[in-house]
Amino acid sequence: MSADIKRRGLMLVLSSPSGAGKSTLARSLLTSDGGIFMSVSATTRSPRPNEVDGRDYYFVTPEKFESMANGGELFEHAHVFDHRYGTPRQPVLDALKAGRDVLFDIDWQGTQQLKEQTREDLVSVFILPPGHDELERRLKARAQDSDDVVASRMAKAASEISHWPEYDYVVVNRDLDRALGQIKSILEAERARRARLVGVGEFVADLTR
Amino acid sequence: MSADIKRRGLMLVLSSPSGAGKSTLARSLLTSDGGIFMSVSATTRSPRPNEVDGRDYYFVTPEKFESMANGGELFEHAHVFDHRYGTPRQPVLDALKAGRDVLFDIDWQGTQQLKEQTREDLVSVFILPPGHDELERRLKARAQDSDDVVASRMAKAASEISHWPEYDYVVVNRDLDRALGQIKSILEAERARRARLVGVGEFVADLTR
Repeated sequence: MSADIKRRGLMLVLSSPSGAGKSTLARSLLTSDGGIFMSVSATTRSPRPNEVDGRDYYFVTPEKFESMANGGELFEHAHVFDHRYGTPRQPVLDALKAGRDVLFDIDWQGTQQLKEQTREDLVSVFILPPGHDELERRLKARAQDSDDVVASRMAKAASEISHWPEYDYVVVNRDLDRALGQIKSILEAERARRARLVGVGEFVADLTR
Repeated sequence: MSADIKRRGLMLVLSSPSGAGKSTLARSLLTSDGGIFMSVSATTRSPRPNEVDGRDYYFVTPEKFESMANGGELFEHAHVFDHRYGTPRQPVLDALKAGRDVLFDIDWQGTQQLKEQTREDLVSVFILPPGHDELERRLKARAQDSDDVVASRMAKAASEISHWPEYDYVVVNRDLDRALGQIKSILEAERARRARLVGVGEFVADLTR
């Protein structure tokens, strides 16, 4: 017997305030790890150039979205400006069953909705910026931003950051490589979590036959 | 602010049947990671040549051991042949408080005793050999072993292996480097676990001041 122990996939949630580098971390993780892929959301907004239906988003009509939400086909959904976004449930469940991991780039509200419906499948990581001055610098990225705009972004970031106690792990993004290494370690560790290794019984039975 | 978030140390337990390579893994982990050190046991047996009191073991009299056990000074203790072995509690608690991690090379009985007295401080890993034939080969290491001796070792291994469901993580030692990588990932991930990061509140307060 030389195959790995059969396991159930996991849902890895990355959340952070703006300016913590989450998107870069998510992209790097997807590039460096072949076993995890991004959850594809459904949305009522129109495709932008280069966006592909089923890869970037599932583009649906407001009526279809409404029926998906009402029919319990979405793990979580939210209004952002005039559009609706949500996570179709079935593709995620299929992936978990096949032992593949799914990455979610969602905020604390989406995470809370997911937590209500999943148990040990969910692994949540909150990413923090390295310090106050660096956070301010990142929120001030555009030179023409007024002090008011930056102050309002900072207040929004502070409000998002206040949700760190709802997460399993906290990673400070002081150095991109180090933070990525920590997230990869979390992923590798959680893949070895006993509760996910549905094939241990079978493996052990063969071991001690 | 550039310091890392203050955290509480963790207790990493490695258990396995004989022939799974646990001791090699433990040694490699201690060599490659400066933040974790081996728990030093108290014992009633005599020091062997080269063994240093306080480094390899705390060598104590049977009377002293008895009073430590009765006084609640030991996390766990066991009889092995004519001698007693146990884990003094205070050095471990001091290490955890200082944010240092402690490695335990103990069996399922010791792990059970530890679990009763610790909560989120304990991270337990069960190491499995890669397969039946390889396990048999390792248990047969000495050429002069009779079939009976090997069969008895295999039965003992099977009995130890049956305790895998009591552990947080399961790692198959098919390849030493890969298994070591998994254990290092578990250690790094668990260091980022929110419940251990006692300094996040302070860090976040400064971040959003």
